[in-house]
Amino acid sequence: MQQTSKKRPRGRPPKEAAGFSETREALLSAGVAALTEKGFSATGIDEILRRVNVPKGSFYHYFKNKEAFGAELIERYAQYFSSKLDRILLNKDRSPMERMDDFVEDAIIGMQRYDFTRGCLVGNLGQEMGVLPPAYRSLLVEVFHDWQMRTAACLKEASNIGQLKHDIDCDAAAEYFWIGWEGAVLRAKLEQSEKPLRQFAKGFFAGYVN
Amino acid sequence: MQQTSKKRPRGRPPKEAAGFSETREALLSAGVAALTEKGFSATGIDEILRRVNVPKGSFYHYFKNKEAFGAELIERYAQYFSSKLDRILLNKDRSPMERMDDFVEDAIIGMQRYDFTRGCLVGNLGQEMGVLPPAYRSLLVEVFHDWQMRTAACLKEASNIGQLKHDIDCDAAAEYFWIGWEGAVLRAKLEQSEKPLRQFAKGFFAGYVN
Repeated sequence: MQQTSKKRPRGRPPKEAAGFSETREALLSAGVAALTEKGFSATGIDEILRRVNVPKGSFYHYFKNKEAFGAELIERYAQYFSSKLDRILLNKDRSPMERMDDFVEDAIIGMQRYDFTRGCLVGNLGQEMGVLPPAYRSLLVEVFHDWQMRTAACLKEASNIGQLKHDIDCDAAAEYFWIGWEGAVLRAKLEQSEKPLRQFAKGFFAGYVN
Repeated sequence: MQQTSKKRPRGRPPKEAAGFSETREALLSAGVAALTEKGFSATGIDEILRRVNVPKGSFYHYFKNKEAFGAELIERYAQYFSSKLDRILLNKDRSPMERMDDFVEDAIIGMQRYDFTRGCLVGNLGQEMGVLPPAYRSLLVEVFHDWQMRTAACLKEASNIGQLKHDIDCDAAAEYFWIGWEGAVLRAKLEQSEKPLRQFAKGFFAGYVN
C-alpha cells in the first residue's frame, strides 16, 4: 500500500464522535474493497481517502498508521467471512454437502457481482506477503486456519451421515480445500469467469464425496 | 510496476552490441526475479535498473516501454517453465506418475532455494490482473493452457498404463491441478513452508491415482 504523500500533517479534527466513527467505517469499507480488488501494493491510501472524501492529512486521526489500518482490514474481512461461513455451513435446512455447494454458489454470485474484479482479500495479501509488514503473516495464516476449522466441522457432519468416502481425514480435506480454493479464486479473476471455481469444486467433491 | 521517475530522458547509448544484449538479458533476469518475488505493482523499474547497474534514463534503449518489458518477462518465464515441464514430464526414465512427483519435488527445492520468498510469476500476475495492462490477460491465460496441455499429456500416459483411476478425464484433471497448484504456491509463500505444496499434491493424487 502506497503511503499518503504527506507524512503526518494533521487535518482538521472531526467535529463530533458520530461523524468520526462513520468516517472510520467508510474508510475501512473502502479499504476492504480496494484490497480485494488490487491487493496492498497497488492501493494508495490517498486513493482510499479520496473515495471517502476525507482530506489527505486526516488519515492519522482515524488510524495509528498504515500498518495498523491494513491489520484492521484483515480483521474486518476475516470477521465478515467467518460470519458468512457460519451462515452457510451451519445451515440446518441443508445437508452438509449441500452447504458446501451453497458456499461455492455464494462465492460465484459474489464474484459475478463485481464482474470478477474482486477476489479474496486474504489470498491477495498472502500472494504479496513478501512486501507486507511481517506481522501480517501470522494474521493471514490464522485466518486460513479459522476458515479451515469451520469447513472441517461441516465435512465432519457430512462424514457422520455417510456423505463422504469412509476414510477421509476431514481436517486435512478442509486444508486441501482452502489451499486449492484460493488458486481457483485467482484463476476466476484472471479468466473473468466462474468456470475455475466450478472446476475446482467439482474436482474436490469427486475425490471426497460418496 | 512503478514507472521510472523520469519519463524518457535517454541515457548514454550502450557502446557495443554485445554489451547491449548482455545488459538486456540482465534486465530480463532481474525482472523475472522481482516479479516472482513481489509481483508487478510492488516492483519499480528504477529498482530493476539499479540491480543491474544501468543508469535510470537508459531503460528505453532496451525496451519500448514498461508494458512491453512486462510482456517479455511473461514470455521469458513461460519459456523457462515449459522447458522445465518437458524435462520433467517427458522423462522416460520415470513412470508418468513418478514424473508428477518429480515436478512437485522440483518445485519444493525451487521454493526452498529462495526461502519461500519467490512464487510463480504467472500466479502473481494473475492475482494482480485488475491493475495490469489488459493485454496481459490473454498472455497469462495462454501460459496456463500450455502448462495444462503438457501436464495432461503426462496424465494420459499414466492413464494408458493404468496408473490412474479408469474414468479420469485427463484434460480436466490437468486444469484442476493447475488451478489448485497456484493456490498451493501462494500458501507456501505465506507459510514459508513446503507443507502446502505437499498437502495439495497428496490430495490431488489421492483423488486420481490407482
